[in-house]
Amino acid sequence: MLESLASFDELTLGQQFEFGSFSLNQAEIIAYAEKFDPQPFHIDPEAAKAAPLFGGLVASGLHTMGACFGLIMGSGLFRAISLGGSEVNTRWPAPLRPDETITVAGAVETLKPSRSKPEMGVVVMRYTGTRLADETVVIEMTATHFFKR
Amino acid sequence: MLESLASFDELTLGQQFEFGSFSLNQAEIIAYAEKFDPQPFHIDPEAAKAAPLFGGLVASGLHTMGACFGLIMGSGLFRAISLGGSEVNTRWPAPLRPDETITVAGAVETLKPSRSKPEMGVVVMRYTGTRLADETVVIEMTATHFFKR
Repeated sequence: MLESLASFDELTLGQQFEFGSFSLNQAEIIAYAEKFDPQPFHIDPEAAKAAPLFGGLVASGLHTMGACFGLIMGSGLFRAISLGGSEVNTRWPAPLRPDETITVAGAVETLKPSRSKPEMGVVVMRYTGTRLADETVVIEMTATHFFKR
Repeated sequence: MLESLASFDELTLGQQFEFGSFSLNQAEIIAYAEKFDPQPFHIDPEAAKAAPLFGGLVASGLHTMGACFGLIMGSGLFRAISLGGSEVNTRWPAPLRPDETITVAGAVETLKPSRSKPEMGVVVMRYTGTRLADETVVIEMTATHFFKR
């Protein structure tokens, strides 16, 4: 667990955080995708071998997002200040395969006090998930958070 | 189930699709968020009452995304042509509360044959999730798909 920030005003531009690492095994990948992204290359290891872009089972990108936010929010860093969010823009530059270890980090990209709500600030965080084995980035997200001042 | 498209070339600019509807109950919202987005307003109905922007339990935006893609991919429309995707940009203009019915629709926003891979086309789809009761949009996504030609 990270110590929770107490206010939007404690954040500084470019500030960086590390949120630890995760991996997803084949059973988890299949179970998630059966519900939320049922495509052969996410749910059927045999069919996935014929997938032109992947050649094997890969995690749903939504599952990768969720695993990242599970770490980010589970870290407790934003526990006392997070009021919600409005937008996440996500890119998946490379596939995530079963049992790969992904480390999650974040950096403060923009900081803006809210005009309409003086007790609130708007923060864009840039998050990355990086494969430990070869430092390939498998997910990049820019997330707009509302944080308490 | 929708009939599967057979090729990228069957799609036309502005073409629209309907994927049906979903709702998330309180237990589902909590179970999802405990794993992938553990914040009080997603996992604790009592604590959520004090959440300044929501005043009650709301679904994790990632859960809303997943429920939409579960319908979109589960519909079978892209079953025979989907090779993967690279990017999703998501906005949540309004919160999603337990047991609200959300209808999911999509429209073709851009169509581009791939330069490097002649057997593939790049398609940006714009998806919306709309609350049936009052037509409020709770989620908007632009997703970049790779489709077989």
